[in-house]
Amino acid sequence: MQFELTKEYIDTLKAAIERNAESSLLELVNDLHPADVAEIIDELEADEALVLYKVMDADRASDVLMHLEEDSREKFLALLTPKEIAEQFIDHLDSDDAADMINELPDDQKEKVIAEIEDKQQAQDIVDLLHYEEETAGALMAKELIKVDVNWTVSKAVKEMRKQAEQIEHVYTVYVVDENDVLLGRLQLNKMLLNPIRAKIADIYDPKIRSVNVDEGQEEIANIMEKYDLVALPVVDELGRLLGRITIDDVVDVIKEEAEKDYALASGISGNIESTDSIFVLTRARLPWLLIGLVGGILGARVIELYEGDLQLFPEMAFFIPLIAAMGGNVGVQSSAIIVQGLANNSLGLSGIWSKLRKEFGVALLNGMVLSIIIFAYNYFFQDSLALAYTVSLALFCVILVAALFGTFVPLLLDKYDIDAALATGPFITTVNDVLGLFIYFLIGHLLYIS
Amino acid sequence: MQFELTKEYIDTLKAAIERNAESSLLELVNDLHPADVAEIIDELEADEALVLYKVMDADRASDVLMHLEEDSREKFLALLTPKEIAEQFIDHLDSDDAADMINELPDDQKEKVIAEIEDKQQAQDIVDLLHYEEETAGALMAKELIKVDVNWTVSKAVKEMRKQAEQIEHVYTVYVVDENDVLLGRLQLNKMLLNPIRAKIADIYDPKIRSVNVDEGQEEIANIMEKYDLVALPVVDELGRLLGRITIDDVVDVIKEEAEKDYALASGISGNIESTDSIFVLTRARLPWLLIGLVGGILGARVIELYEGDLQLFPEMAFFIPLIAAMGGNVGVQSSAIIVQGLANNSLGLSGIWSKLRKEFGVALLNGMVLSIIIFAYNYFFQDSLALAYTVSLALFCVILVAALFGTFVPLLLDKYDIDAALATGPFITTVNDVLGLFIYFLIGHLLYIS
Repeated sequence: MQFELTKEYIDTLKAAIERNAESSLLELVNDLHPADVAEIIDELEADEALVLYKVMDADRASDVLMHLEEDSREKFLALLTPKEIAEQFIDHLDSDDAADMINELPDDQKEKVIAEIEDKQQAQDIVDLLHYEEETAGALMAKELIKVDVNWTVSKAVKEMRKQAEQIEHVYTVYVVDENDVLLGRLQLNKMLLNPIRAKIADIYDPKIRSVNVDEGQEEIANIMEKYDLVALPVVDELGRLLGRITIDDVVDVIKEEAEKDYALASGISGNIESTDSIFVLTRARLPWLLIGLVGGILGARVIELYEGDLQLFPEMAFFIPLIAAMGGNVGVQSSAIIVQGLANNSLGLSGIWSKLRKEFGVALLNGMVLSIIIFAYNYFFQDSLALAYTVSLALFCVILVAALFGTFVPLLLDKYDIDAALATGPFITTVNDVLGLFIYFLIGHLLYIS
Repeated sequence: MQFELTKEYIDTLKAAIERNAESSLLELVNDLHPADVAEIIDELEADEALVLYKVMDADRASDVLMHLEEDSREKFLALLTPKEIAEQFIDHLDSDDAADMINELPDDQKEKVIAEIEDKQQAQDIVDLLHYEEETAGALMAKELIKVDVNWTVSKAVKEMRKQAEQIEHVYTVYVVDENDVLLGRLQLNKMLLNPIRAKIADIYDPKIRSVNVDEGQEEIANIMEKYDLVALPVVDELGRLLGRITIDDVVDVIKEEAEKDYALASGISGNIESTDSIFVLTRARLPWLLIGLVGGILGARVIELYEGDLQLFPEMAFFIPLIAAMGGNVGVQSSAIIVQGLANNSLGLSGIWSKLRKEFGVALLNGMVLSIIIFAYNYFFQDSLALAYTVSLALFCVILVAALFGTFVPLLLDKYDIDAALATGPFITTVNDVLGLFIYFLIGHLLYIS
């Protein structure tokens, strides 16, 4: 049932492409879902892909194109003329997919492709969609939907719906609008089946419907659809006029994207990076974070330098520098990760910053006590200096408390100023905690050793 | 349109609960979606929630219950008798939600509640579902679905569908089965509208349908539904018999859960932790990871101790211990995060381990060169010792290379042995890289300073 991509399959396919053997090619890909064909094409060169595209019918080829990885799609489209792109793909796509695709084209190509679109309604829809800001409801929605006028009868509605349904894959919901296209509610299909064909839509529609404004952000939309278990969500303008609808499959992509972005940020990688990107792209996404780490390391060096005198007298203090730095980083990331996830899920509840800080402080106290006792025992039994044992334990305890509070506070602060809180779980918090931790360690060491 | 939870609202509600003012309570919650009511109840004490539940009708109350956070639900159900749980909630839930809820009850309660279920079909469905392993298709699916026999006519099918549809919220798909309940395909609604009522289902159904085996894991199911843009997926047994269906809203939860688990693991937190959990639970989820960090710190101390002699001669070597340790950790996490995400998305493609290692090596070379040059410049201008400048730069370069390769290799290795690769981005990789980095640093220092 499930298609499995193998090296043998690709080799067979490449050989068929080389021979330009149309019938073997058709046989190889014909029974596959467009998403599977896309997976295959991601493994081919753009000119090989072109041969494969030529054997598929236009609807199927367009579906496949939308399932490709973005960079494969770009490379492939670069081989085509604007006329070919418009005729072979744009005319066969839903307006939202078509707009997404045009958005990926180089700026000088966009207008040329739009000018070549034959279906004027489609061209208009696409231009409308292109105007909405990225990552908003407007950019996410499709214009294709089924709507009926509240003044129609059931029989008129059924007739109109059949016409509209022709160009739509999944119906999900039939929307009810007034003569100005203002969204009034939805029509349940069983209501249509159970009522006489002369019944008025006005008498049988359900006015309870949830919608979003066209400027709503995609993260909020994902939260709404997830919370209320929606499979489609209508999009309206400020006057309540129905502009389009967002479907759950688009939102699944948003949810994955947001989760991946958070994960990447927490790992010190910016932007939407894939393992298939080029070395240069991968480096550019990571270097800034490493530079933060480098600056932190230099600051750490300055802190230790401050205490160089102590270090010359008691060189064994150097042994536990990595431990103190690492634990500060680990604790800080844990605390901020909890907060970042709570923010993302809207599950922090009503209790404010102080209650969070109090709780993290409690956790840190517990963790700090356990870990300090263990490291004290280790030093007591395996190191000669009792002063070192006290210093390391006390410093570790303080570092854990400070790091936990800092890790809780920073994401909450970032969120308050509408900055992505996930930034706080990355190298930034580790770095600051490293430096803070070292300072605490040497300060305590200085005070304890001197006395 | 969108409900916003405020402190004022909760205060008004709590006052109404105190007065047991049924009509004010109804007014306060009546127009809200069950998900919103659940959000409110998460802020109440269990006994307060009980008062609120009493004023809602049973269907609505059950819906609300399923939208609660797990710990609120547990606390609340602990106040009820098995009979109350069965009558007020289980009888009004879909089989999959009911089974989930029963699964959360303490073991001694489960059987008692099941014994009290009035609807014998529901009890049977629930017991069936409870037998499936967690996180498989069986545990995820609902038994409620619409199916028609391939031998029926359209008119018979419509009549049966109306009966079945009564207990189902979203229809999505009408499944076609043979006399042994073996899944054959699906019936498109417009086919039913367009064909005469005496047409045979056998002649108009679509045999193309994707299904999963009841033992399939939830991560794979999420991948399939996402890849093929499905809103519902039928579940079959080894004989192809239709057992149930999984809907997209359940899978959205799985996707979020998996992403959160990865994120939490990467941040050194195990299990499914929420910021609302108790201090004890939060501590238990984090301490093991901090212990790994502690052991790493102790190992680091042993490495430095090995070179205590060098350190006494050249104490300035201690300055850059935090820098080396931190950079090793950062680079390692970056490399492993890319691989973990590639594995999760199935987007690593066909190219094997070696090509990944080669690429990460390239990125590390670039990053390593840039960072080494910067740190060399810093040391050249701001530190007196040229030997130190060489040591730090060379060590940093080597550490970045080793950490990148290690960070790439470990998740691939874990994945090969079916261990969750996300483990590799957490404190584990940071810790190992810390220790390795220190060793490289002091080894290079020893060789350079001695000569």
